[in-house]
Amino acid sequence: MGKLYVVGFGPGGYEHMTEKAIEVIKNADVVTGYTTYVNILKEFFPDKNYLATPMMQEVKRCQMAVEEAMKDQTVAMVSSGDSGIYGMAGIIYQVAEEMNANIEIETVPGVTAASAAASVLGAPLMHDFAVISLSDLMTPFDLIMKRVDCAGQGDMIVCLYNPKSKKRVDYVEKAADILMKYRKPETPVGIVRNAGRKDEASCITTLGELKNADIDMFSVVIVGNSQTYTKNGRMITPRGYRV
Amino acid sequence: MGKLYVVGFGPGGYEHMTEKAIEVIKNADVVTGYTTYVNILKEFFPDKNYLATPMMQEVKRCQMAVEEAMKDQTVAMVSSGDSGIYGMAGIIYQVAEEMNANIEIETVPGVTAASAAASVLGAPLMHDFAVISLSDLMTPFDLIMKRVDCAGQGDMIVCLYNPKSKKRVDYVEKAADILMKYRKPETPVGIVRNAGRKDEASCITTLGELKNADIDMFSVVIVGNSQTYTKNGRMITPRGYRV
Repeated sequence: MGKLYVVGFGPGGYEHMTEKAIEVIKNADVVTGYTTYVNILKEFFPDKNYLATPMMQEVKRCQMAVEEAMKDQTVAMVSSGDSGIYGMAGIIYQVAEEMNANIEIETVPGVTAASAAASVLGAPLMHDFAVISLSDLMTPFDLIMKRVDCAGQGDMIVCLYNPKSKKRVDYVEKAADILMKYRKPETPVGIVRNAGRKDEASCITTLGELKNADIDMFSVVIVGNSQTYTKNGRMITPRGYRV
Repeated sequence: MGKLYVVGFGPGGYEHMTEKAIEVIKNADVVTGYTTYVNILKEFFPDKNYLATPMMQEVKRCQMAVEEAMKDQTVAMVSSGDSGIYGMAGIIYQVAEEMNANIEIETVPGVTAASAAASVLGAPLMHDFAVISLSDLMTPFDLIMKRVDCAGQGDMIVCLYNPKSKKRVDYVEKAADILMKYRKPETPVGIVRNAGRKDEASCITTLGELKNADIDMFSVVIVGNSQTYTKNGRMITPRGYRV
């Protein structure tokens, strides 16, 4: 029976891949994924048989992966971060079901962008947090902002994935305005671009200044809770409320 | 100058460690951490110089680690999961600051329990989610439950860390009751015990039945959002609200 691994290879640097992700990719007959991800892996595993598809063709990419596995191949469907967090794992299960594919599917977890970004900033995720994507491709805008509001009410740390795109330039600012209903403008905010991969860059700003920050689609934004502070260039959320 | 790495070694199996975590542990002069974690690593790296401390002595453990680094040693302070999510990274920065330690500190991110548990269950974390610890050691009970309520309002998937302890037996039930203000009792809930390590076990139940589930301190509980469903024993949250 063919086997399809859905592999998260972490933020992008080889060093942040898990042993299992490396083994699965090394042993796969076919490695498939979005072109950008495939190009990252080609550097580390140049001799593999790759099948790359451009962005926005996710269902087709999954169908291709399932078809390969149905030919009794071992297939690694790769994506950055953790394939189980906003990743391809869900669509793969759905597509395999629709195709009535008699294959084995296994998800290989990886280091997600929130973890990678937090490690660069210091220790912002020491307490309860919400992970919210600002992409409105699949989620109504109002629901996204409602979630930001709920996270604000609950004084949760907030990790914003996909904070900005060319078309979507002001959602971060809107999210900041909502969070400032509950948190001071001085609340620390960390921005990490290309966390854990080449050209990594980061800065720490505040909720009040977030609208002026340099953010793009390769960035993750972490907004502290009411206890978060910065010291010596590190963003730290203390663990307890009663320490 | 001494160097202190705060290393998350992932769920516990060697295969889920990152290359960097393995390298750092291999090259450290001293590996320190809570006894349970040290015992896991001793199996994989038997010849290291270990310094273990029992639970509940976290500040002391951090002081020891910082002291070792101040002797120009390379120290790996280890914990399971991601050291940056409810981990030791924050306390280490705080303790090093208090001790005026002139050492370099680096956090090595790992696969957090939410990712490990999700990979076992299927694909429950394909959409926005909140990570909430039910431990009230450091957080007032009312704030914990307020966060559960906010996550419920926002229709976020909810990952509950530390769902139960010997003293704290009914918080999961209380959380389920709060979430049922917003979600149907049929909402799928996944429970994973020892995710990604020896003796891993999992089951899928519902929000309405959660109070009868077998849960302990080694478990992670993932409550689906309004879109989550189960199929062929997998718990899946579809990616979009408009697919």
